[in-house]
Amino acid sequence: MEQESGPIIAYPLLRTFCIDVLAKVKVPRDEAELIVENLIEADLRGVGSHGVVRFPIYIQRIADGGTNPQPSMKIVRETRTTAVFDGDNGLGHLVGIRAMELAINKASEGDCTFVAVRNSNHFGTAAYYAEMATRHNLIGFSFTIGAINHMTPWGGAEAVLGNNPFAVAFPTPEPFPIVLDMACSVAARGKIIVAAKEGQPIPADWATGPDGLPTTNAIEALKGFVTPVGGPKGYALTLVVGLLSTMLSGAFFGNDVGDLYAKTTAAQNSGHLFGVLPVTAFDSLEIYKDRMARAMADVRGVKKAPGVERVYLPGEREYLSMNTRRVDGIPLGRSLVAELQALGDRYGVPFEAAD
Amino acid sequence: MEQESGPIIAYPLLRTFCIDVLAKVKVPRDEAELIVENLIEADLRGVGSHGVVRFPIYIQRIADGGTNPQPSMKIVRETRTTAVFDGDNGLGHLVGIRAMELAINKASEGDCTFVAVRNSNHFGTAAYYAEMATRHNLIGFSFTIGAINHMTPWGGAEAVLGNNPFAVAFPTPEPFPIVLDMACSVAARGKIIVAAKEGQPIPADWATGPDGLPTTNAIEALKGFVTPVGGPKGYALTLVVGLLSTMLSGAFFGNDVGDLYAKTTAAQNSGHLFGVLPVTAFDSLEIYKDRMARAMADVRGVKKAPGVERVYLPGEREYLSMNTRRVDGIPLGRSLVAELQALGDRYGVPFEAAD
Repeated sequence: MEQESGPIIAYPLLRTFCIDVLAKVKVPRDEAELIVENLIEADLRGVGSHGVVRFPIYIQRIADGGTNPQPSMKIVRETRTTAVFDGDNGLGHLVGIRAMELAINKASEGDCTFVAVRNSNHFGTAAYYAEMATRHNLIGFSFTIGAINHMTPWGGAEAVLGNNPFAVAFPTPEPFPIVLDMACSVAARGKIIVAAKEGQPIPADWATGPDGLPTTNAIEALKGFVTPVGGPKGYALTLVVGLLSTMLSGAFFGNDVGDLYAKTTAAQNSGHLFGVLPVTAFDSLEIYKDRMARAMADVRGVKKAPGVERVYLPGEREYLSMNTRRVDGIPLGRSLVAELQALGDRYGVPFEAAD
Repeated sequence: MEQESGPIIAYPLLRTFCIDVLAKVKVPRDEAELIVENLIEADLRGVGSHGVVRFPIYIQRIADGGTNPQPSMKIVRETRTTAVFDGDNGLGHLVGIRAMELAINKASEGDCTFVAVRNSNHFGTAAYYAEMATRHNLIGFSFTIGAINHMTPWGGAEAVLGNNPFAVAFPTPEPFPIVLDMACSVAARGKIIVAAKEGQPIPADWATGPDGLPTTNAIEALKGFVTPVGGPKGYALTLVVGLLSTMLSGAFFGNDVGDLYAKTTAAQNSGHLFGVLPVTAFDSLEIYKDRMARAMADVRGVKKAPGVERVYLPGEREYLSMNTRRVDGIPLGRSLVAELQALGDRYGVPFEAAD
């Protein structure tokens, strides 16, 4: 969601604030540090829709009993290449890290491994977990069920599907991984919210109204459903990402899925699936990296469309943003800053945005 | 590609014809049977773009030395959960079956397994291989590089990417698997060919011209590039599918990719990746199928949009089509029938379409 421009917040200040607030709601400090690193990486990478803008609802859910600040996560079933991991209703950012770590550790003998997760919560960006794998020369996969049902099956007029995100990340010979991280809608729902606030129409392929028919009226669109990319393709894609994230673990799917924002006292039982493929099981790392270097050169080296100066690889812009924002700080919208200040006031943790 | 309406061809007649022609170009009869079952399943399922419409070019490539009719396929590297499989430039339909069989066999002890393929060719529909896995209670993945570069990176104006297809298939409690099978463009290039022939404009989101800018002129579009679903999302998606299909095996990517139709004397070195996840490693088959039954009921049970009578699961329409066409026959366009008859004449195999 786009934010009205506001102050630039230094990365360490934002990090410390979030850790301190998590500690106030009884999240152990070492786990809070992991959670916040994951959370703020979204803001650093320019993916503000999945960063600290979500922090207040995470805290609200803990305060209201909907999320467990001190989960006892455990493996409930395991083979040498698979596991089912129970997050005990912990924050998704922590559960996801622990589950991907498990997949990575299980791959230490050179196997393809997959870990299915249940009893988790909204986990932020799918990219974070897929990228974790690349630091071990693994190709990483990350799938999750969305935390609210905003989609309807193709031909339907009722929300039983999430706008389910997934990520795939590859090790490269450069300092950043190639990473796809996408949900299945044409446009983020946040853009429709902005259009509705501004009284602007939306393109006809962004959403359908509550009747399931396309609409350019942003207010009707918010009562309806976001349109999947490629129509029936995106419907099939979001369904498949949702099934991968839930059918192997028993996490909630379809009518059982709650609403991250509306039901703050009830556990969401969100599901994820993490997987890794070890590059060196297939060929030497040198040969793989040579292939990847050629592929990256082919993509970057294309003739450009008029007005385009540079072609980026997926994940490259985000990497460049991260490097810049770690030093220069993170721009946050004014209303978000006010929300964080109010949150800080509630928990006795000052949020000092120099603005 | 849509075909002008023509005769209905009985499934056994079409099958026998194709097997006999393959035998004439020195494909062993037992392998020809496997290839043709795979090939015609696309027509049975209503996916005519990937069925016998491609048969003449496959035969042409064998005749011109571009494809090997008697490949000595082999595993070039193997661990307990991975393999690199060399197709020896055989027909992709056969190479793909053998490689997916390998992944399935390797999973017999309950492991997640992935097989990377090189030196293959156009393999038809990605769905076929993913569905093979579901008959063993495995979730199946199938990725391939496209056989022609029809896409440009986001911001580019030069074709270095295929419209790369992939499939994911799930076992279900019903007689058909749920299967996603999609390429990454908004519209199939065949639809643009039809519009160009008819002198009709195309929607602005189907293609860009050779300059990389959107066009509604179908003729310009054919000189340009098909537009990826969701814009930069689809660019990232097709790139990732292409990398999965080639980086682990050393198959061609980017500028090295040839053109299925234009370079019939040179090997394509196409790449694929096949993977399977064993359902029973994660939970009992009964519990999984119960979950899947509930999920399918939730999707089918939604309120329908006006004018919609039924909501289908991905792969369900194709399954219904297959059942009907096995009995009633397969409608083929007149120009395709003429092409098959000419092919038959060349090889002394009569094609008797009762029309």
